[in-house]
Amino acid sequence: MSDQIPVTFSEQDCRAIYSVIRSRRDVRSEFTSDAIPDDVLGRILDAAHHAPSVGFMQPWDFLLIESVSVRRRIYAHFQEMKQRADMYEAGRANLYKALKLEGILDAPLNVCVTCDRERTKGHGLGRQSDPMTDLYSTVCAVQNLWLAARAESVGVGWVSIIDLDTVKQMLGIPDHVHVVAYLCVGYVSRFRNRPELEDAGWEHRTPLQKLIRFDHWDNRDEDRAARFFVDADVPR
Amino acid sequence: MSDQIPVTFSEQDCRAIYSVIRSRRDVRSEFTSDAIPDDVLGRILDAAHHAPSVGFMQPWDFLLIESVSVRRRIYAHFQEMKQRADMYEAGRANLYKALKLEGILDAPLNVCVTCDRERTKGHGLGRQSDPMTDLYSTVCAVQNLWLAARAESVGVGWVSIIDLDTVKQMLGIPDHVHVVAYLCVGYVSRFRNRPELEDAGWEHRTPLQKLIRFDHWDNRDEDRAARFFVDADVPR
Repeated sequence: MSDQIPVTFSEQDCRAIYSVIRSRRDVRSEFTSDAIPDDVLGRILDAAHHAPSVGFMQPWDFLLIESVSVRRRIYAHFQEMKQRADMYEAGRANLYKALKLEGILDAPLNVCVTCDRERTKGHGLGRQSDPMTDLYSTVCAVQNLWLAARAESVGVGWVSIIDLDTVKQMLGIPDHVHVVAYLCVGYVSRFRNRPELEDAGWEHRTPLQKLIRFDHWDNRDEDRAARFFVDADVPR
Repeated sequence: MSDQIPVTFSEQDCRAIYSVIRSRRDVRSEFTSDAIPDDVLGRILDAAHHAPSVGFMQPWDFLLIESVSVRRRIYAHFQEMKQRADMYEAGRANLYKALKLEGILDAPLNVCVTCDRERTKGHGLGRQSDPMTDLYSTVCAVQNLWLAARAESVGVGWVSIIDLDTVKQMLGIPDHVHVVAYLCVGYVSRFRNRPELEDAGWEHRTPLQKLIRFDHWDNRDEDRAARFFVDADVPR
């Protein structure tokens, strides 16, 4: 990768950037066990570390979990949580049961991304008005990691059906450190064209123009919003 | 932009993707008033809308604020909050006062990114174990927006020194909708090589190998972590 930071990106560069954003997937079903080379993992973590952070706080840590015995304990916990979270009725309950929602043991690596809520770096700048901003910074790091991984043809799946305190205890994470994301990371047999939850019929994508408002919450204007996309040249 | 989603990205593509991640800045000082063309804004918002979301919930809305009178009210509120948040002593207090922390009136556009916490899309999947995940999804949308903007040579600055409830009231946002990010968006005179807070001497970047742990929180091994970066070919 180049040392130089360009002022502008070419049309081809932009195409790659939009393409990685649009083709990133929350991977659950397609992990292979192939090991991730050190340099690839290094670039992916470095991308995460270049996320924005409130006051330049950099509140994150990256806990890399390769140990099969640790991952087995996490997986057993996930299974219990998945059953407990089944609040659905009839058809949706069956759909829920059939959904694959993690790749904890399929992927060769799990990454627990944490936020140290007492880290003094950044000197509290910007955190007084919104104490959530350190967590948000950590999420930005996760999204960078996810996109960099996709660029490297590495899949990432965010496991959300876990109890954060249980995971903390299993991994020896201290009280003042918050678990933001538990990720499965590995090469994949393929990347789907659409989100897996869309393929499975769980949910569909909302037309973007319905989500745009102007100057005031009550001022929605789909015709005006649709104009943004006439020449945008992105697949709708 | 292409309709096709590639399975793999070329080395040149990867260079562009890492470059946009590394050269993204939290812009405060360099906004110009040049208008953002509709198609550029369309692509940036479309990138945000392709963020991951828990249960494919897509909990976000994008409130585009061009109105000068609305932005003046937000700016007056920011000024009050900045003074109130000055808890620093001696040298750091002077540094704090000198920091420019927003571009609310300099940039032609502000974007308030919200999270509708009662949106039923996604059917609650993944939100029972961690109720913050809808907010995190919205942050992922912000990070996508930020990177796409950088690809388009558009700067973004996240204003964190505001009271979220005051902003909600000013913009008519209902109670159940949470303000996640208030962004200033516009073209810039330049992108800095380093974060503005680093240039200003507020904070420096932590060496990444200090933030990596293996299988258990207590197992930090900087030598092992450093190996990830030997051949990673990213500027350290």
